[in-house]
Amino acid sequence: MQKPLRVAVTGAAGQIGYQLIYRIAAGEMLGRDQPLHLSLLEIPPAMEALNGVVMELEDCAFPLIQGIDPTDSPDTAFAEVDIAVLVGSRPRSPGMERRDLLEANGEIFTIQGKALNEHAARSVKVLVVGNPANTNCLIALRNAPDLDPTQFCAMTRLDHNRALAQLALKVECHVSDISGLAVWGNHSPTMFPELGSATVSGEPALSLVDMEWYDKEFIPAVQQRGAAILQARGFSSAASAANAAIEQVRDWHLGSQLVTSMGLYSTGSYGIREGIVFSYPVICKRDSVQIVEGRTLDQFSRDKIAITEQELLDERSAIEHLI
Amino acid sequence: MQKPLRVAVTGAAGQIGYQLIYRIAAGEMLGRDQPLHLSLLEIPPAMEALNGVVMELEDCAFPLIQGIDPTDSPDTAFAEVDIAVLVGSRPRSPGMERRDLLEANGEIFTIQGKALNEHAARSVKVLVVGNPANTNCLIALRNAPDLDPTQFCAMTRLDHNRALAQLALKVECHVSDISGLAVWGNHSPTMFPELGSATVSGEPALSLVDMEWYDKEFIPAVQQRGAAILQARGFSSAASAANAAIEQVRDWHLGSQLVTSMGLYSTGSYGIREGIVFSYPVICKRDSVQIVEGRTLDQFSRDKIAITEQELLDERSAIEHLI
Repeated sequence: MQKPLRVAVTGAAGQIGYQLIYRIAAGEMLGRDQPLHLSLLEIPPAMEALNGVVMELEDCAFPLIQGIDPTDSPDTAFAEVDIAVLVGSRPRSPGMERRDLLEANGEIFTIQGKALNEHAARSVKVLVVGNPANTNCLIALRNAPDLDPTQFCAMTRLDHNRALAQLALKVECHVSDISGLAVWGNHSPTMFPELGSATVSGEPALSLVDMEWYDKEFIPAVQQRGAAILQARGFSSAASAANAAIEQVRDWHLGSQLVTSMGLYSTGSYGIREGIVFSYPVICKRDSVQIVEGRTLDQFSRDKIAITEQELLDERSAIEHLI
Repeated sequence: MQKPLRVAVTGAAGQIGYQLIYRIAAGEMLGRDQPLHLSLLEIPPAMEALNGVVMELEDCAFPLIQGIDPTDSPDTAFAEVDIAVLVGSRPRSPGMERRDLLEANGEIFTIQGKALNEHAARSVKVLVVGNPANTNCLIALRNAPDLDPTQFCAMTRLDHNRALAQLALKVECHVSDISGLAVWGNHSPTMFPELGSATVSGEPALSLVDMEWYDKEFIPAVQQRGAAILQARGFSSAASAANAAIEQVRDWHLGSQLVTSMGLYSTGSYGIREGIVFSYPVICKRDSVQIVEGRTLDQFSRDKIAITEQELLDERSAIEHLI
């Protein structure tokens, strides 16, 4: 049997957590032969609900689970963790300005970054799901100076999958027929889902759709998909967000042949300003992530990318004192 | 690629449905190489929420999914289905007597049984999860005279898993160390989780615990576990129920070496009255289910089994006009 890995999930009793944890425990994220310890972090008022989540985990009798540790202490939750999925964040409450939201989450991710820095396994991989994910990720990694920034990423896989789904519906193909699509920038309504290098069964995607649809329907549909789900379900996306987290960590941990999208700490690739967490097209090798370099970006794409880059720079300014 | 299978889930926008569908779509129930069509049934007031569930399924970009058909018509939902997981049922509302509950669900499962009889694939397998599961299952199979009763089962796998978990906690073993445990009878507080043939790493379970714990703590804890989860979470078990449904269908479809528990149409095995749906210890061969015969049941066990058998006979009397 393989050595157990320790996985931490924050916001473990929330809607996304409830979708995520059982799939992790079933082996969907790290493999069906990989034993696990689960560390589940919640805030004190949610500990009773978390207890119920743990009882249901017990009641699944998962063969892979070697232990379950619920806690409200980040220091405890992140002790020796190999994988941390940071889902819990403060949602925007009525009357809250964006700057207040950044600030409130900044505190959470400052604490968690420091706790990871002190207590996590030195090879830990950290996926930030909680919004604003890119800037939360930036705060966490800057507060973990003993870890490498490449050990952190922000989740744009849900946006990536949403883009695959919208293109597949439009051109009536299976999602598996699509390659090379990428989401650039911030996990926010400024994100840029790019079709310029995408193919459908080998055909350039942009030869199958017109620019009007691309610019006026596809891009807004992907950008606003979260709001559409909220409208239909009465609740925000949980199952699809959890699924994206599982896929992103799985690819990162086990490797994959496919181009996907991840928010990475920028070191200047594609001329993006250094020191923000920016979503790029990537290929995950086992344990390392490579940005797909050398793509040609036309003016249309460069303009879209500049908008989402600027938003991330503005977000960074708002939390400059935390990093 | 294998021929796609058609899977129907009822109550698809409910709490258990929301946990279940995405794991089915990821390949956890029928295998990661088995393409699927999903048929999702809901009642008309839930169709908007179901639309949100479908949007999120699209947004998962699951490689195995070949099509998704939401509907409020049982005839449409069950057309050509290979697997039907009947989750949706009427919950007990305040002031409702047990007889009213049986009657209200009786109507649902009469309609669904007839629809399965007319429209499902002739080899369909039907798992009933919605409560009262055993008697709902009886109603469905009696309304499907062209199908064999062995094509229907009621879910007691959650009770089985809960019993594994409680024993593992008590004797401090891993759930995988336990063999031979079984749940007898009704999926209700009369169920009998039996340890008489169970072993822990080869040791008889009853040599590791005393009868006082078995009778006064273990059995009530398993029987009342649903209420304990409801108390802790504020919601009834969804993730663990969905997990049990996945495991039960997976074992039924793909086969398994392990003794587990399923509610089957009784033909008199272990002296149980014929013509009720009763949970037995079983081993699933690929596509067939074999009751584990020849177990010795002491007076303690026979008394417990008689209680749950009588409850099922009483339930059958209440819905006799429907079967």
